[in-house]
Amino acid sequence: MSKLKTTNRTRIRRAPTRAVFDREILNQILDEALICHLGFTDNEQSFVIPTLCWRSEDRLYVHGSTGSRMLKILKSGASVCLSVTLLDGLVMARSAFHHSANYRSAVILGPMHHVDNEMDRLTALEHFMEHIAPGRWPTVRAPNNKELKATDLFWIALDEVSVKVRTGDPADDSADMDQPVWAGVIPIKQQFGPMAVAKDMQQEVAVPDYSTAFGQRWVNE
Amino acid sequence: MSKLKTTNRTRIRRAPTRAVFDREILNQILDEALICHLGFTDNEQSFVIPTLCWRSEDRLYVHGSTGSRMLKILKSGASVCLSVTLLDGLVMARSAFHHSANYRSAVILGPMHHVDNEMDRLTALEHFMEHIAPGRWPTVRAPNNKELKATDLFWIALDEVSVKVRTGDPADDSADMDQPVWAGVIPIKQQFGPMAVAKDMQQEVAVPDYSTAFGQRWVNE
Repeated sequence: MSKLKTTNRTRIRRAPTRAVFDREILNQILDEALICHLGFTDNEQSFVIPTLCWRSEDRLYVHGSTGSRMLKILKSGASVCLSVTLLDGLVMARSAFHHSANYRSAVILGPMHHVDNEMDRLTALEHFMEHIAPGRWPTVRAPNNKELKATDLFWIALDEVSVKVRTGDPADDSADMDQPVWAGVIPIKQQFGPMAVAKDMQQEVAVPDYSTAFGQRWVNE
Repeated sequence: MSKLKTTNRTRIRRAPTRAVFDREILNQILDEALICHLGFTDNEQSFVIPTLCWRSEDRLYVHGSTGSRMLKILKSGASVCLSVTLLDGLVMARSAFHHSANYRSAVILGPMHHVDNEMDRLTALEHFMEHIAPGRWPTVRAPNNKELKATDLFWIALDEVSVKVRTGDPADDSADMDQPVWAGVIPIKQQFGPMAVAKDMQQEVAVPDYSTAFGQRWVNE
């Protein structure tokens, strides 16, 4: 299995037992995620903006409207931070102190690269839609030249990354084990659906089945 | 209704029609959220760290282990950014270009304030637990002095904030309305439960009912 390398900037200092160095785990986290939080610095002020993201091979992509402040800073080549977090559960311990959360997270550092070429932009947008709704891309009206020009795309290499995972039960002190309080985990999952058709739908079109994209978390009507 | 003020740093430039200035909406977003993404700058590198958060009145709180890099920077009084995002749905348009996401987000700027006093720390931790699991605080073993000393707490004023909300159907171009493709929204919700008791549970304790904290999204066994 491919291993992630650690730099001085991505070494996990807090709770190092939760550090993970397996690239497959990183890929799973990114492929399950829909959004990342992108951090950049502008005029000495930190900003954190949520944005949709998707992985292709060893890159994580984001997109946005040309001309936005965030994308101008990305174009400058500044080293930014993309953080992807899946919250999996609330960990209820016997002591207040040992309450925790189960989660899987990836923090990615580095400069972002602009997708200059229009054909590459189109390919990246296809991957984006296939990430969210497999099979949908050929069915929608494709971007025209004006729309492609209005869309900026960037990717960051999955190179300088730290991954942390916490799973399982609370870790209470042995002295607390007989406290008469319920201990365990409240699992958290994202639930998708049921799909809600647009009010101004003019065509009779069967509801597509994108459930494979979301697995067990899909709710049928 | 209390209105949020706009500064040059929080004015919403992209999609300004999604800007919201109602403090009640901000409070709802923060009270539904469990985590924020905290952005800070260290040695010219942006970092974005996910962390649990909770609101008390007009403050948003976070906590962590004393000595972590992030908390040292918070103590320095640097202006940071806390971003809270609730992803509510995927918006499937007739054209690739008009695909979007429904979401509610808050971006908060400013310095964080350290909770110096131990009694204030205890009160804040109680609010934290009541946010997640109402009624649980009196049932758990309370923090001792050593644990209180090992926990750092910070709050940011809900003062310089931008709130954005997108809801509803896709907004396709009129020329695309007769495209034979399904259009609408795939709703996304966080689903909590069923509660999983710890394997090393030694007491017979009834499963508590924290469902009021999570409303309709609770799953019973």
